[in-house]
Amino acid sequence: MKHIYTDLAVESKEIYNPEKKKEIEGVSVEVADEKNYSVTTVKVLNQKGSQKIRKPLGTYVTIDVPNLDKTDEDLKDEISIAFAKELKALIKEYKKNKILIIGLGNWNISSDSLGPKVIDKVLVTRQYFINYNKEFDETMANVAAISPGVMGLTGIETFDIVKGIVDKIQPDILIAVDALSSRKMDRISTTIQISDVGISPGSGVGNTRAGLTKETLGLPVIAIGIPTVVNAATMVNDTMDLIIHSMKEQAEIGSEFYSLLEGLSKEDKYKLIEEVLSPFMGNVIVTPKDIDVLIDDLSIIVANGLNIAIHPGIDIADVNRYIR
Amino acid sequence: MKHIYTDLAVESKEIYNPEKKKEIEGVSVEVADEKNYSVTTVKVLNQKGSQKIRKPLGTYVTIDVPNLDKTDEDLKDEISIAFAKELKALIKEYKKNKILIIGLGNWNISSDSLGPKVIDKVLVTRQYFINYNKEFDETMANVAAISPGVMGLTGIETFDIVKGIVDKIQPDILIAVDALSSRKMDRISTTIQISDVGISPGSGVGNTRAGLTKETLGLPVIAIGIPTVVNAATMVNDTMDLIIHSMKEQAEIGSEFYSLLEGLSKEDKYKLIEEVLSPFMGNVIVTPKDIDVLIDDLSIIVANGLNIAIHPGIDIADVNRYIR
Amino acid sequence: MKHIYTDLAVESKEIYNPEKKKEIEGVSVEVADEKNYSVTTVKVLNQKGSQKIRKPLGTYVTIDVPNLDKTDEDLKDEISIAFAKELKALIKEYKKNKILIIGLGNWNISSDSLGPKVIDKVLVTRQYFINYNKEFDETMANVAAISPGVMGLTGIETFDIVKGIVDKIQPDILIAVDALSSRKMDRISTTIQISDVGISPGSGVGNTRAGLTKETLGLPVIAIGIPTVVNAATMVNDTMDLIIHSMKEQAEIGSEFYSLLEGLSKEDKYKLIEEVLSPFMGNVIVTPKDIDVLIDDLSIIVANGLNIAIHPGIDIADVNRYIR
Amino acid sequence: MKHIYTDLAVESKEIYNPEKKKEIEGVSVEVADEKNYSVTTVKVLNQKGSQKIRKPLGTYVTIDVPNLDKTDEDLKDEISIAFAKELKALIKEYKKNKILIIGLGNWNISSDSLGPKVIDKVLVTRQYFINYNKEFDETMANVAAISPGVMGLTGIETFDIVKGIVDKIQPDILIAVDALSSRKMDRISTTIQISDVGISPGSGVGNTRAGLTKETLGLPVIAIGIPTVVNAATMVNDTMDLIIHSMKEQAEIGSEFYSLLEGLSKEDKYKLIEEVLSPFMGNVIVTPKDIDVLIDDLSIIVANGLNIAIHPGIDIADVNRYIR
Repeated sequence: MKHIYTDLAVESKEIYNPEKKKEIEGVSVEVADEKNYSVTTVKVLNQKGSQKIRKPLGTYVTIDVPNLDKTDEDLKDEISIAFAKELKALIKEYKKNKILIIGLGNWNISSDSLGPKVIDKVLVTRQYFINYNKEFDETMANVAAISPGVMGLTGIETFDIVKGIVDKIQPDILIAVDALSSRKMDRISTTIQISDVGISPGSGVGNTRAGLTKETLGLPVIAIGIPTVVNAATMVNDTMDLIIHSMKEQAEIGSEFYSLLEGLSKEDKYKLIEEVLSPFMGNVIVTPKDIDVLIDDLSIIVANGLNIAIHPGIDIADVNRYIR
Repeated sequence: MKHIYTDLAVESKEIYNPEKKKEIEGVSVEVADEKNYSVTTVKVLNQKGSQKIRKPLGTYVTIDVPNLDKTDEDLKDEISIAFAKELKALIKEYKKNKILIIGLGNWNISSDSLGPKVIDKVLVTRQYFINYNKEFDETMANVAAISPGVMGLTGIETFDIVKGIVDKIQPDILIAVDALSSRKMDRISTTIQISDVGISPGSGVGNTRAGLTKETLGLPVIAIGIPTVVNAATMVNDTMDLIIHSMKEQAEIGSEFYSLLEGLSKEDKYKLIEEVLSPFMGNVIVTPKDIDVLIDDLSIIVANGLNIAIHPGIDIADVNRYIR
Repeated sequence: MKHIYTDLAVESKEIYNPEKKKEIEGVSVEVADEKNYSVTTVKVLNQKGSQKIRKPLGTYVTIDVPNLDKTDEDLKDEISIAFAKELKALIKEYKKNKILIIGLGNWNISSDSLGPKVIDKVLVTRQYFINYNKEFDETMANVAAISPGVMGLTGIETFDIVKGIVDKIQPDILIAVDALSSRKMDRISTTIQISDVGISPGSGVGNTRAGLTKETLGLPVIAIGIPTVVNAATMVNDTMDLIIHSMKEQAEIGSEFYSLLEGLSKEDKYKLIEEVLSPFMGNVIVTPKDIDVLIDDLSIIVANGLNIAIHPGIDIADVNRYIR
Repeated sequence: MKHIYTDLAVESKEIYNPEKKKEIEGVSVEVADEKNYSVTTVKVLNQKGSQKIRKPLGTYVTIDVPNLDKTDEDLKDEISIAFAKELKALIKEYKKNKILIIGLGNWNISSDSLGPKVIDKVLVTRQYFINYNKEFDETMANVAAISPGVMGLTGIETFDIVKGIVDKIQPDILIAVDALSSRKMDRISTTIQISDVGISPGSGVGNTRAGLTKETLGLPVIAIGIPTVVNAATMVNDTMDLIIHSMKEQAEIGSEFYSLLEGLSKEDKYKLIEEVLSPFMGNVIVTPKDIDVLIDDLSIIVANGLNIAIHPGIDIADVNRYIR
């Protein structure tokens, strides 16, 4: 059976528990609400939980900021700091003197360029450690950063490039930044997910590419992602639900059709929509019109947050300072 | 009543005559099929026709190239030439020694950057006429070109910038290039529209901005457009039609709902969808994932075509030569 | 007689008074030293002074920041604020509700792209005044901003584009930002000049282009400039002086040659070098290797300073906030 | 003793044999003149020759095109083809089914961005070989391509990134593209050098970085370079020579100074100039004003030439076709 595609753990959960607040076995969920944002921590505790929500074992922290796509500069700083705090907590236990940051995605495709744009802006310091022949510094972590591109640009698998670098420079920990896809339009550029399970490539048909995980690379892999697109089929699906729901409420009409759709499993319905759509739109995305500008803003928030979280000497007062 | 939004004259027609081949009064349509493309010439002949298809009087030439979004370099050259031929025919009657080319749209938004990208690539010659104090040249037209940006970037209405330049340099004719929106996904980056009616800003609520037309600027205005986005509501609407159609064919189910929807006018149905969508997605577009790359390719085709059409000394052999 | 080319008033002065501290008639000079920078205010008081230093009547404020090309983020903020303070003082007397900011220069040439990059980053507000039909706001000035490009890109004189816009939107004051050329390598990207005399195009041979000045545009024109290049002939000239000086000090050798060069007027010597250089390097500049990166940094400093100086509601705490 | 810095073998030779046409032992030189360009083939045959011109053993082909910096489109095509021909001849003997192309340099510094810009434009095919599980194709070589950035951007040595990729994908041959520095202003953007000795990092003080050579990587390394900058000290040196030469011819003056300078070895003189210059200009380059535009043009020529030289199925008629 085909998996409804989403990169967000918090959405996997919602698929199974849309309204009912019942807990899933093997999965713990905690929500902390702040004034401007909420933090949801999903822990996949065992194989049972992993199968239920189709996500690997580990911790998934989601920061939801409903107004992050607006141009409120104070909010952006607040979220950089909140993101840094969550990231710090997640990597607390790991050794992290030497850090490699990887910006995944295609820099020629706006909606996929979050990773490369963060790499452009993050503070890179490893060259100073080498030039001054230093092993350790009290205020700075030893940070290298690179955007490996995508196979369509380089002809080389991302894993091969990253693995080669990891073998050479032997970091303690890897942080990968990537643009995600979401099931919900209102999560686009308003949600940041941090997890300690690494990156698994799209589990689509016949995809045998190696992921970036502790198993494949031999070191802890932290994944940071922000949804930038919604799949077109997803959007049609959600809109149809809304329309039918709204028509049903207004009158007794449509109930036959609605019953039929209700009779289908969610995944069958999604498959039906995808089949209808696929002939005439292969590679279509649904995205905000100003996604280019949003990605610029988000890459600053993430780069600021990374700088605060990983360098002992950079704090709140320095937000926006080390951004190139 | 709200107008279903589309920038393509050929689509206005389709709305009213989806299958029936009946002619619309006051509108003539001619189609010429070539191996790799077809050219549809819609002429809005009088006020009756204008009201029917909600487009100003004038000629609208649409070049449809189903495979233009593929990377076939020979096809791209062929279309540059075909486009140049149609453009030449459309401006045959006009004086065109001095040409001003305007690239409309926001260069920071990929799907809206066609105009500015064409301006980057088109051959500009007016400076030589000024420096050598020349009035006329046998091989070169006198061409100026500028991208005025959009009001969100400059704080200035496009019309005010263009009108100021027109008054100063007094061109014979203005050619405006713009990204369009289409009703159909399969037109995205596969259709070029050329018209002699200028550019009218979106006729949405309370939009009192001045268009770029013969009436407002005092010179002929040729508009060149390529659809780069589909409105999200449009896509949902079209997909729902397809799904219901497909379900209806398969069984007797859904007929009640379908009848209801059929009972609504097309525009009422569209309005319903838009109402449902609007709360949670204001500014969403549906676009190919690689729109950035497509726009680059299309801007070369248009710039090549413009160079061939307006400079007597540039012909087919020079395609790709004067592109920066 | 050919004028040794420089855009900086403070350098014109130095040409005539290299070491001697004697005052020039008709020119007042004040220097204020701060810890990290100094501010020199040159006032050209009358025609005599104007002829002496070959600059129009008016005030020229130069902020010299020896370490501005280093990556010290605190210094950058400090200079944004110092720049804002000087700019505010210079425009104190003018009406400035409606401001038009012009970014001069060619965005395709790194060393010439300061103006366009500032325009990309400055806060533009005029659209809100129009959309909300407002005449005045207590916290925000009414700001429009545009980069007109250069004649080689558009085929249109900068003056024609700017004059057209000024006529349409009728600002109270115009602020033009431009990259300058300097006589001294150590001024590159370390000096900001603000003046109230507008922009006069290079006074070279046969240059009849209109400047952007109160006379040509009919409103006060503030010019903001930062040197980004040194002319190659200038650099050779200065280095030769240093070498001969150094050799002369070390021994009695070279004195004959030195005497000869000393016998030449400075301008004749410069002309000689230019003649020798010109056959084999027409359009050469001397610039820091990382000028692209420096221009990015400087454009942030200038945009921040502009935002602070012209919007009543933006102050020091907001530095870096309204930068796109 | 410090080496006068130049990346071009043909200039090393000129240093020692400025006018005299005498041959250097261990070095063979052949010149072929075409109408629009000349091809100089320098072969360093043994250790003696290598020491004389301070270049590793191997073949250095230099294509000189005096007008390559002009906008003559026919010439550009001609040079793409000439370059492809020379490159083909140089790699004739090597196995070259699988090719890795490396674009060296810093994409944020215009004058250093030739390599990355070529990588953006070159045809990459390795992904098709992998997706279709193919070992060999008659019309296409198996090409991967990447720009590793520079240590200041990534914190990682170029060698480490390249070596990691070479180990993973095991190409038959590596082609590295880089911007060079020249001793002569008139070589900037008019000379292409191809060699089979790989890339050795600047042999400056204490530089212990590993080069990209057959010895370090274990496969043949072809280096393609175009000079984009002249060192500032070099330019002062050359200009002073010209000035003194010109003054000496005109009169008997300056001879004392000239004799002194003549008494110094060339390298001592250069060192003197560098000492004088260094305090006030660390990192200065001399470059054409429009280097950004020139690099764009040159990267197309190189990418076209590479495509023609390495893919059996791409020939002259396809020039400009596979450029992105």
